[in-house]
Amino acid sequence: MDNEGNNPTLSFVNGNSMIEHQTLVHGIFELCARIRDQKPLVHVVTNFVVMNQTANALLALGASPTMSWAQEDAAYMSKISDALCINMGTPVKGRIEVMKTLMTLAARMDKPVVLDPVGSGAGAYRTGIAKALFALAPRKIIRGNASEVCSLTGTNYTTRGIDNTLDLEHARQILAGHGRTHGDGEETGTDEPGWPSILVSASSLIVSGQKDMILAPGRRMILDNGTPLMNSVTGTGCILSALTAAFYAVTDNGFDAAVAASAVAAIAGELAAEKASGPGTFMPHFMDALYNMNEKNLAARLKVESTAS
Amino acid sequence: MDNEGNNPTLSFVNGNSMIEHQTLVHGIFELCARIRDQKPLVHVVTNFVVMNQTANALLALGASPTMSWAQEDAAYMSKISDALCINMGTPVKGRIEVMKTLMTLAARMDKPVVLDPVGSGAGAYRTGIAKALFALAPRKIIRGNASEVCSLTGTNYTTRGIDNTLDLEHARQILAGHGRTHGDGEETGTDEPGWPSILVSASSLIVSGQKDMILAPGRRMILDNGTPLMNSVTGTGCILSALTAAFYAVTDNGFDAAVAASAVAAIAGELAAEKASGPGTFMPHFMDALYNMNEKNLAARLKVESTAS
Amino acid sequence: MDNEGNNPTLSFVNGNSMIEHQTLVHGIFELCARIRDQKPLVHVVTNFVVMNQTANALLALGASPTMSWAQEDAAYMSKISDALCINMGTPVKGRIEVMKTLMTLAARMDKPVVLDPVGSGAGAYRTGIAKALFALAPRKIIRGNASEVCSLTGTNYTTRGIDNTLDLEHARQILAGHGRTHGDGEETGTDEPGWPSILVSASSLIVSGQKDMILAPGRRMILDNGTPLMNSVTGTGCILSALTAAFYAVTDNGFDAAVAASAVAAIAGELAAEKASGPGTFMPHFMDALYNMNEKNLAARLKVESTAS
Repeated sequence: MDNEGNNPTLSFVNGNSMIEHQTLVHGIFELCARIRDQKPLVHVVTNFVVMNQTANALLALGASPTMSWAQEDAAYMSKISDALCINMGTPVKGRIEVMKTLMTLAARMDKPVVLDPVGSGAGAYRTGIAKALFALAPRKIIRGNASEVCSLTGTNYTTRGIDNTLDLEHARQILAGHGRTHGDGEETGTDEPGWPSILVSASSLIVSGQKDMILAPGRRMILDNGTPLMNSVTGTGCILSALTAAFYAVTDNGFDAAVAASAVAAIAGELAAEKASGPGTFMPHFMDALYNMNEKNLAARLKVESTAS
Repeated sequence: MDNEGNNPTLSFVNGNSMIEHQTLVHGIFELCARIRDQKPLVHVVTNFVVMNQTANALLALGASPTMSWAQEDAAYMSKISDALCINMGTPVKGRIEVMKTLMTLAARMDKPVVLDPVGSGAGAYRTGIAKALFALAPRKIIRGNASEVCSLTGTNYTTRGIDNTLDLEHARQILAGHGRTHGDGEETGTDEPGWPSILVSASSLIVSGQKDMILAPGRRMILDNGTPLMNSVTGTGCILSALTAAFYAVTDNGFDAAVAASAVAAIAGELAAEKASGPGTFMPHFMDALYNMNEKNLAARLKVESTAS
Repeated sequence: MDNEGNNPTLSFVNGNSMIEHQTLVHGIFELCARIRDQKPLVHVVTNFVVMNQTANALLALGASPTMSWAQEDAAYMSKISDALCINMGTPVKGRIEVMKTLMTLAARMDKPVVLDPVGSGAGAYRTGIAKALFALAPRKIIRGNASEVCSLTGTNYTTRGIDNTLDLEHARQILAGHGRTHGDGEETGTDEPGWPSILVSASSLIVSGQKDMILAPGRRMILDNGTPLMNSVTGTGCILSALTAAFYAVTDNGFDAAVAASAVAAIAGELAAEKASGPGTFMPHFMDALYNMNEKNLAARLKVESTAS
């Protein structure tokens, strides 16, 4: 399950020591450069609301998107694509079956996967789909807001539609305690040895919100980048999931991919916000910022709030 | 059916007296402020062409969109949402069934509904769907162009695709005469006592076009705002319908909601047109204008052409 | 099949002589003016990723889009629309059936059709659909990248997803040799008399890429306009197909329509690129450029690289 340990590609994120800012920035930009160079084909099955913007964000980053969810296309697309991103928004029945097929095929081919459990926790139907998908491909990153990611632990957290209602620290405790017991069957929420269940079922988790928390066994990083305008535009979370898949296509390290994608998306958001006069002009500038992203921008803006093993 | 009478929330639109501009503007902006404060969850089932822009317009206004049309989601979404907007564009069979379910659930919960009968009048298939949906939820606003709204009276008006072919005055006569007879079974088109059938089956009607006409039993207002650029971009009508649902979520008065939404959308259009160099740059600026809408803009631009009881 | 010969409407493209730049520009702009004047209703069934942008591009050009793929709508929409554009991206089963119905109806009514075989060559499923659609309506223009168009000849060319992998000259040879034999059953690839099979099954072909090649029996033109930014935005090819249908709605000459659409789209791209700071701001400016296109822009920018009979 833990591919990172066996196949390390970048060491810029080291939970056991102080991270040097410049090394981290350089590592992130190195992954951007790989995407531009390799142009990975990212297969995204996502909701109808954000398809166009998701494809455009991947192109702006330098990746190549393909968005088909035809069951008949599944085997071929799985064969030729470099990563898979599954976003379960607008979960119409037939599409869920295709998502399962694609995740199963990805697992068989050891292809990197990002799962975005949109609205998980908002009703039994969506939560059930999220859990079924979560069980499928072992080599995957989960990207969602705190409510969505935490709903995968089996406990139900109040969610109104797709709005998040959990704060980051609470989410951290829920996720850290998942699957741990004190003999009496109760979750502890403490940092006792052994990784929480949800972390061993995924390469890493991105809990995104005002700040982004990235978790993997033995690693945790909180990034404090982004702009409130990203909450006034639909699809910024879905786009982050797709960008994460592009990064995961060029590194075997799920934690690195998650950190790089979160940093790049949030910093592109900051750059766009400076040029925008509202959420409408924000999105075009966000795409431009992804397209024009350089190491200098990353270095000047990246804010790591905390990191821990 | 006539919820307004029983549950008045704003009195800024008074068909029996000259409306004071400042009071009207203040009333409209008060509703904008409520949306920003309450962030109503607006459930929109709309056509695939304008989903993204519709969700973004709701976010820009301060509301929260959810766009699912999964039958399995219907009960949950109905429970948690504050208003429903049904737009029957690209009317694929399965989605129409979900629309019916959602309108029935909304009626049961007395939830405000906006129905956008896209293309009603353009062929028997669409007109039939529109009439079936029209019959379902009593507490609803109808928003369409003149051809679409008038097609609901049962008479067929020529429509080429989704283009409007009726002028406002003709539409007014058709709607005013609906269900009235001179004993000989003929419609009269005159203002005899009693409300036309179509008006007692809805809280209000928005007949939108170059000018917007808002009708309710005993009330009529024509707004002369907007810009021709809104006709060179797809979805401005669909967006108006969704915005109307957001307003209807924060007031029980369907006429108020219709007037406020029409005014805000058209004035946002005017503001955007001043910054745009064509229909492409118009849309981002339109979103920004919704996001930045303030009472001063409304006061400076609102043009009420006529009002009548 | 060869409607052009029987029903010539413009003679600005003459394969047998040097084309005069000014005449060509004037002919193209004349078709733009017709679209703005006649506002043809273009029925587009296209993939979910680019629906909004496609509808907006048609509106910006002056045409009127309708995007329905409801089987129940098919007969009515066929009756009222002036041209049909079929784009087989995201090829979900049910929609393919509607595409076939619409192309059959278009053939019956001698309505102009543009077929965009997105991803043909990328797997047996898509290639099979493309060939089935290709066989249906005789009066059609094919618009695709080199891999896609060449895949229709029956030979398989490597395609990674929807990315093109053939250069223009290679594509020209494949298409020129299609269906010609030297008695021994081998394709020749030479310019012997008689038209290649693929050319007699269509009014014209647009092989689009960095340069656009337009082919018809006895005619060939290569246009060297456009901008690399068009490759960093999804849907520019799909949009070109829809614009081609708008041009084909106002002239019986498929070669003229193909040349005019390719020139206008690529030049709009150049104009947009000068105002854009990346692919995000490119698209709004592209729409504006279509909307504001004038003869002066065309004259200053049109670059015909070569033309031949």
